[in-house]
Amino acid sequence: MRILVINGPNLNMLGVREKSIYGTKTLDEINEEITQFCIGHGIDADFFQNNSEGAIIDAIHGAINIYDGIVINAGAYTHYSIAIADAIKCIDIPVVEVHMSNVHSREEYRHKSVIGSGCCGVIAGFGDYSYILGIMAVMHMPENR
Amino acid sequence: MRILVINGPNLNMLGVREKSIYGTKTLDEINEEITQFCIGHGIDADFFQNNSEGAIIDAIHGAINIYDGIVINAGAYTHYSIAIADAIKCIDIPVVEVHMSNVHSREEYRHKSVIGSGCCGVIAGFGDYSYILGIMAVMHMPENR
Amino acid sequence: MRILVINGPNLNMLGVREKSIYGTKTLDEINEEITQFCIGHGIDADFFQNNSEGAIIDAIHGAINIYDGIVINAGAYTHYSIAIADAIKCIDIPVVEVHMSNVHSREEYRHKSVIGSGCCGVIAGFGDYSYILGIMAVMHMPENR
Amino acid sequence: MRILVINGPNLNMLGVREKSIYGTKTLDEINEEITQFCIGHGIDADFFQNNSEGAIIDAIHGAINIYDGIVINAGAYTHYSIAIADAIKCIDIPVVEVHMSNVHSREEYRHKSVIGSGCCGVIAGFGDYSYILGIMAVMHMPENR
Amino acid sequence: MRILVINGPNLNMLGVREKSIYGTKTLDEINEEITQFCIGHGIDADFFQNNSEGAIIDAIHGAINIYDGIVINAGAYTHYSIAIADAIKCIDIPVVEVHMSNVHSREEYRHKSVIGSGCCGVIAGFGDYSYILGIMAVMHMPENR
Amino acid sequence: MRILVINGPNLNMLGVREKSIYGTKTLDEINEEITQFCIGHGIDADFFQNNSEGAIIDAIHGAINIYDGIVINAGAYTHYSIAIADAIKCIDIPVVEVHMSNVHSREEYRHKSVIGSGCCGVIAGFGDYSYILGIMAVMHMPENR
Amino acid sequence: MRILVINGPNLNMLGVREKSIYGTKTLDEINEEITQFCIGHGIDADFFQNNSEGAIIDAIHGAINIYDGIVINAGAYTHYSIAIADAIKCIDIPVVEVHMSNVHSREEYRHKSVIGSGCCGVIAGFGDYSYILGIMAVMHMPENR
Amino acid sequence: MRILVINGPNLNMLGVREKSIYGTKTLDEINEEITQFCIGHGIDADFFQNNSEGAIIDAIHGAINIYDGIVINAGAYTHYSIAIADAIKCIDIPVVEVHMSNVHSREEYRHKSVIGSGCCGVIAGFGDYSYILGIMAVMHMPENR
Amino acid sequence: MRILVINGPNLNMLGVREKSIYGTKTLDEINEEITQFCIGHGIDADFFQNNSEGAIIDAIHGAINIYDGIVINAGAYTHYSIAIADAIKCIDIPVVEVHMSNVHSREEYRHKSVIGSGCCGVIAGFGDYSYILGIMAVMHMPENR
Amino acid sequence: MRILVINGPNLNMLGVREKSIYGTKTLDEINEEITQFCIGHGIDADFFQNNSEGAIIDAIHGAINIYDGIVINAGAYTHYSIAIADAIKCIDIPVVEVHMSNVHSREEYRHKSVIGSGCCGVIAGFGDYSYILGIMAVMHMPENR
Amino acid sequence: MRILVINGPNLNMLGVREKSIYGTKTLDEINEEITQFCIGHGIDADFFQNNSEGAIIDAIHGAINIYDGIVINAGAYTHYSIAIADAIKCIDIPVVEVHMSNVHSREEYRHKSVIGSGCCGVIAGFGDYSYILGIMAVMHMPENR
Amino acid sequence: MRILVINGPNLNMLGVREKSIYGTKTLDEINEEITQFCIGHGIDADFFQNNSEGAIIDAIHGAINIYDGIVINAGAYTHYSIAIADAIKCIDIPVVEVHMSNVHSREEYRHKSVIGSGCCGVIAGFGDYSYILGIMAVMHMPENR
Repeated sequence: MRILVINGPNLNMLGVREKSIYGTKTLDEINEEITQFCIGHGIDADFFQNNSEGAIIDAIHGAINIYDGIVINAGAYTHYSIAIADAIKCIDIPVVEVHMSNVHSREEYRHKSVIGSGCCGVIAGFGDYSYILGIMAVMHMPENR
Repeated sequence: MRILVINGPNLNMLGVREKSIYGTKTLDEINEEITQFCIGHGIDADFFQNNSEGAIIDAIHGAINIYDGIVINAGAYTHYSIAIADAIKCIDIPVVEVHMSNVHSREEYRHKSVIGSGCCGVIAGFGDYSYILGIMAVMHMPENR
Repeated sequence: MRILVINGPNLNMLGVREKSIYGTKTLDEINEEITQFCIGHGIDADFFQNNSEGAIIDAIHGAINIYDGIVINAGAYTHYSIAIADAIKCIDIPVVEVHMSNVHSREEYRHKSVIGSGCCGVIAGFGDYSYILGIMAVMHMPENR
Repeated sequence: MRILVINGPNLNMLGVREKSIYGTKTLDEINEEITQFCIGHGIDADFFQNNSEGAIIDAIHGAINIYDGIVINAGAYTHYSIAIADAIKCIDIPVVEVHMSNVHSREEYRHKSVIGSGCCGVIAGFGDYSYILGIMAVMHMPENR
Repeated sequence: MRILVINGPNLNMLGVREKSIYGTKTLDEINEEITQFCIGHGIDADFFQNNSEGAIIDAIHGAINIYDGIVINAGAYTHYSIAIADAIKCIDIPVVEVHMSNVHSREEYRHKSVIGSGCCGVIAGFGDYSYILGIMAVMHMPENR
Repeated sequence: MRILVINGPNLNMLGVREKSIYGTKTLDEINEEITQFCIGHGIDADFFQNNSEGAIIDAIHGAINIYDGIVINAGAYTHYSIAIADAIKCIDIPVVEVHMSNVHSREEYRHKSVIGSGCCGVIAGFGDYSYILGIMAVMHMPENR
Repeated sequence: MRILVINGPNLNMLGVREKSIYGTKTLDEINEEITQFCIGHGIDADFFQNNSEGAIIDAIHGAINIYDGIVINAGAYTHYSIAIADAIKCIDIPVVEVHMSNVHSREEYRHKSVIGSGCCGVIAGFGDYSYILGIMAVMHMPENR
Repeated sequence: MRILVINGPNLNMLGVREKSIYGTKTLDEINEEITQFCIGHGIDADFFQNNSEGAIIDAIHGAINIYDGIVINAGAYTHYSIAIADAIKCIDIPVVEVHMSNVHSREEYRHKSVIGSGCCGVIAGFGDYSYILGIMAVMHMPENR
Repeated sequence: MRILVINGPNLNMLGVREKSIYGTKTLDEINEEITQFCIGHGIDADFFQNNSEGAIIDAIHGAINIYDGIVINAGAYTHYSIAIADAIKCIDIPVVEVHMSNVHSREEYRHKSVIGSGCCGVIAGFGDYSYILGIMAVMHMPENR
Repeated sequence: MRILVINGPNLNMLGVREKSIYGTKTLDEINEEITQFCIGHGIDADFFQNNSEGAIIDAIHGAINIYDGIVINAGAYTHYSIAIADAIKCIDIPVVEVHMSNVHSREEYRHKSVIGSGCCGVIAGFGDYSYILGIMAVMHMPENR
Repeated sequence: MRILVINGPNLNMLGVREKSIYGTKTLDEINEEITQFCIGHGIDADFFQNNSEGAIIDAIHGAINIYDGIVINAGAYTHYSIAIADAIKCIDIPVVEVHMSNVHSREEYRHKSVIGSGCCGVIAGFGDYSYILGIMAVMHMPENR
Repeated sequence: MRILVINGPNLNMLGVREKSIYGTKTLDEINEEITQFCIGHGIDADFFQNNSEGAIIDAIHGAINIYDGIVINAGAYTHYSIAIADAIKCIDIPVVEVHMSNVHSREEYRHKSVIGSGCCGVIAGFGDYSYILGIMAVMHMPENR
């Protein structure tokens, strides 16, 4: 089983950016934790991060026939990228939306998920553990069991 | 470690209601699955279901000093009960909001979580497995480790 | 044929409350009239009134396998109770929404029916005769003929 | 006792148009059923259908001193014709708004009744039986008893 | 100098309709007063009333090359007829919008004039004297002096 | 008969300001024209101009028992001064709202008259002749005849 | 003279909940202070607290013929319970709305009082002294003097 | 193959009205061009223009079993006539919405097409050539090939 | 202890203006009652009324180091004067907002208090007794005890 | 004559994505059809597809002095990319907006075209034939004849 | 070259008011700094501060023929004074809007500048240095070079 | 001291695009002017322009530890890029938002700055001199003095 973990804009700055919200771990450290978890569960995990909306769409398209699931933290694009939402809808792979912070207790404009309508589900608020929960959610998708 | 699982209005009808959205398992069957999972992880889980906003508020208040975490599926109250949101904010126990369906791909008025601002996080869209992910999320809260 | 007539918040005050809008008959007097009408048409009618949203949801659930139709005047809950709307949607019994006053000529916030999306239809503006019309509407539902 | 039944735009297409919503009876067949019902209750019923807002206003004005009540299905004009609403308000005859489908479970813009503020009440969702219920509602108006 | 006075929907009911707002004079009586005023000022006034949006548009088009000004009380169409607004814009004759009642102290939806953007100006609130003021306004248009 | 003509903010700049909209006459020239008209009709007209909301309110209060009518061009305060609207409502003198330009063909925020709900009526769009029409409107108020 | 003091959802948690906003006194301590004040002014005060919307409606109905006034802090229900607003409107007893915090300096959704339209007045922002001011306001109602 | 070209309100004024937007050709000249184009492609084209909403609805109904396609420029009705939208939905003939001007670069209220939901598609912005493109679009409808 | 009572626009008209809402006492009579109350409680009360937003701001600034509290009825400025709200925020003296009428049962635009966010609290709906309650509220401010 | 055909995000997935809406042809197949059509009309057509907003802007800029017209299907960017709208406005080449599906019968957020204000016109709803119509529209632009 | 620096409501309280936002310098100290800067650049600067909307309008009018530019910090009036916006539009002198704080990172209602449409530009967020930048902006206006 | 000047979408077209708004200088000419100014003040200025949202985010991240300030004209992204706003918030370097035109006197959608909440301040409306003022603003930031 192969899973692609996609991180969107500014998430390359984890550990640098607004630490009171996002914690002090870097994205590499988080990816390493996810890798450890996946190895322990017999899963291959690949990682992709990009600040460009177009590059994220390309990555979603490119997942076809290669991955069994996608875990995506689309950062700010979550709230306005209809294009990424369309990209998710045009592939058959289950996609889980994750966020480190609880978007519902932040600014009003972060309460709305534009990309969510194409995803299977959403997990938000548990720091880097949100990614692990996302991996588990993909593992338990009916088509993956 | 003790966790309270709260289910709100109409969730007693699981297995009866709109099966294309919620599946065919009854609430008792789901609770039994959660119990099995919790036993396997050394957790005591209790269950509460009620259709009344006031009774849910009472249950949240009653959890003080007894439970280490709450997993709540507040059903339709999710979207308009400021009173339940206030109840969650006045206890110190971590609360995780869960939904079986992906609220973002349903009616517009289900996209907004009024109770979410007081919760630690939200998990939605994974059927009855959402509850298991919620239990795991509580287990990994910093204060529970 | 059995029909359940549900009255929501403040309708126990009929004959007391704002008589210029609702008339001078008490709820008992109205229920007696409905009973007389039903006896004349070979229908069993039961009556339930409660001011609590949760209790109304319980009554709707409890109607399964017992009643052939529900006539509901949900009072103020008509306008904001997504939970009652969900309850109506999760039973297979036809439900008719009734109001004594014409909601469209009252305050703006009474123009919108949240519970209406799950009902078969609505009858409003004919005083206590709205209930009789509601009973007749249930009697003529295709599944009741 | 004389009643005028007014049908607005596109209702001449009943039995042709979107049969899954409106059923397969033509307007003539429905009018014949209403006539039969009225004959049985000693009522004279006349029928008027027109696709033009102005013609409907003329018909409402023309009802003065001739009819004891009006049953109107204004079709799409229900939702935006302030002019028809004004016409209803400037006559003293009771007017009942009817719809065959349950407007609250259709498109958002059909939830709002602009003409409703001048009517006595509304009946919606019971197919062609909505007209019969409307006739009965007019018959029970205090001024008609 | 020739002026066309156009009255829209329901204004044929003046003297009948909601007398507390519009007074007790009939449209014919008002037109007679306007005629007297016009004779005294050397103006030819013609009158047109219709309840149909299309007929009003036709009348506006037909005024080209015949009239030097139009005084229009478009009734309810004032608030939503973009088509009448367009008709006014495509003729070169000055058009004055009049209302008998003060639209700003009535229902919210009567505060907005859709047809106003194409008119020279508006006069509202002076009962039937609004028409006389409208005639005078046309008489003083630069192109008419 | 005595009439007070009130001009609000920036109207002292007439003849200076945006001449394409307001023309080239100064306020003094317009006032002189109004005076001539009034002398010809046996009316005493006084004039008041001020850029301050408070001063305009004082002037309205001060008109009690002195003037038989007020003609007011409140300038930009038309659109947001609830305080001036309240002042107009607390005197018994008829007040006519006037504007030189047609507010409905200018910016969106000029379409709404906050002060209009307390006035008898409104006249807009006829340049300085709007004031003369306003004087005539006051002269024909029932209480002034 | 008898007064009923009603407290709504989560107010049983006073002294526990968000102390920076509500202070450290428990509801029992506040009620004791109110009792002392009332004894000193010859008033009988009774107290009712409940987290359920329906129970609060029942309490309001039950006050008829027993109490001369009601002081109510409806908590979160203040902002959305049309049902409680209706309950207040259907009794003849003066009702004063109180809040401990200044609702206008908190979250946007707390600025709006749905129940306020049926109350005599509102007192907000003075901590537990708001209740004492509410008692005094009831005492000075014209019907109580 | 037969096509009906429908033109709505004010389009009879083409060549007269706002020439900077609509050009200088009259409707007859445009219809002649369309006729020439159709003759060249073996199509019968008929033309209908009316300023009344009701007449346009009648024309749409009347096209059944006679025409293979409709090209409609509904003028201002495009933006608010739910009745025309309903008429289009209740026939089986493909309907193409056309506009001479690019509605998206004009007033805000012209950006929204109410009638568009029932049409196959829309063509706007190419002057009278929009009609020719509309004819071609109908010709290429799957059911017409 | 010294308190400043500020009254805003139109309150000088009390006893004149809309007596059904505000009662028949003049502002001087009310001030005299407040003075009597204050003398009885050892407080110095000064009074300021002005119809100008700027003068009210000046008065608020001028209260620094002189008064221990302000009771303000800002009249219509309550609903839109961000400038007065800012003035209240830039002094350290407790300010209590009062209204004679219950703003929540009047026009929609009076439900919103713009100046409230800077005040300690609000008291509305008790006629002239609102001022006495306001004085008492100031007296019980922690810093005044 | 040279024309550039630009396709935006996810259109590279044509033939894969949501076939019930977009059909089964791939983008290459559609481009081939367009090429055939262009060859037949003596036009050079070039093709550009990219999922990135920035790349599309670059392509629009790059068309200056090379192409005589642009046909653009901007996909989801149609609805929110002010940047692409600005790009279209800063070149002198005519740009035609095309869509395969009828955007007015899809989700609400697809009804609004942000890029449309800079385009000459729009063609939507005719599947891949929309592109051909777009080419023809460019060919008939006054500057191209 | 002469420049007028206008400060609006509450800016006389600088150094007193909310120091965390506005700093600790008084308005006199800031004006002194501006004077020093102007002397060094051969500019005459005059200063005007007032809390009244009307007085600020008077000052703007009074600048005609005396000053070559205006730098204005209109305080709270920035967000709602259409009257000041109109005043700015009716003079020919370049006006620069300045703010000490970054209005875009404060309350929502401070994001909107009503007066901005008449100004040349805006400078916000640089504390008292905003005024100096404003002076420089005026100096570099084409008409001042 | 080093400053990075970032220009967003379409600004590479300066001197080409809509010259009536942006003037005739090219971006290179403007950059040369900024360079001359910076040399004169002992500052190193670097320049970056890109039409892609992602590339601008990368540039902002890349500025860490290299630049002492950023001057950004984000073009159209100003109004909707939450992602760029987040990028600005996650670096410690002061960022000044600049615009050549006065955004408040252009289209409604350009009045709102999404990226502004993370910036120190904004300068708009002074053509290419806005950049020079932006450089000066950065130079006077407390951390840069």
